[in-house]
Amino acid sequence: MTAESTKPLLKLKVQVLVGDAIAIGPGKADLLAAIGSTGSIAAAGRALGLSYRRTRDMIDTLNTCWREPLVCTTKGGKTGGGAMLTPVGQEVLQRYRALDAALQATAQEHGAALLALAEPTTP
Amino acid sequence: MTAESTKPLLKLKVQVLVGDAIAIGPGKADLLAAIGSTGSIAAAGRALGLSYRRTRDMIDTLNTCWREPLVCTTKGGKTGGGAMLTPVGQEVLQRYRALDAALQATAQEHGAALLALAEPTTP
Repeated sequence: MTAESTKPLLKLKVQVLVGDAIAIGPGKADLLAAIGSTGSIAAAGRALGLSYRRTRDMIDTLNTCWREPLVCTTKGGKTGGGAMLTPVGQEVLQRYRALDAALQATAQEHGAALLALAEPTTP
Repeated sequence: MTAESTKPLLKLKVQVLVGDAIAIGPGKADLLAAIGSTGSIAAAGRALGLSYRRTRDMIDTLNTCWREPLVCTTKGGKTGGGAMLTPVGQEVLQRYRALDAALQATAQEHGAALLALAEPTTP
């Protein structure tokens, strides 16, 4: 193994659980962001390598775990229909990203001494 | 579902990765703590509901990912042998717990507004 491949890394994951459901986590946050940027559920799922079934299941969860649905769809019109984030969907994504950024900053600050114990000693 | 079961919760996980191996995470931290308290690899594994094979595999990882092994065993003697944490093992456990506590505090502080969006509205 090269020095690069064995460099220790901190991996951090935060989820919101509602009962047994994952209301949001890294995968659903990425899906929300992709819907926001593509304007399409199918395109967002493809961009993330998800099956259409899996994408729909994730959106069902996103639309039932929060006070209001996070994703809405439009049919017809000039653009032939599409999908977008609701205002609550935008807020959930923004607050999840802010939480994740705060956690990453804490991990940087408080994890350095732990990582140092796994650093290969220089020969 | 009762209000209790749907109360939203933040779930947080932090791991140290070295190459493909998980050098420490919640499960290995619990195993280190159990070895420290029981003085026995077998008893620690049983206390956590792990198979002996799984316990040994986790200890192999704990003993190869860090600068020094984290767990050492003694054979014979008055107590009939046992296991204990090395000084580096104690330090890794303490620093992992401190990192996790710092992350939990950050999550409390920065996650409240996100959780509120998943709180059931009072009727």
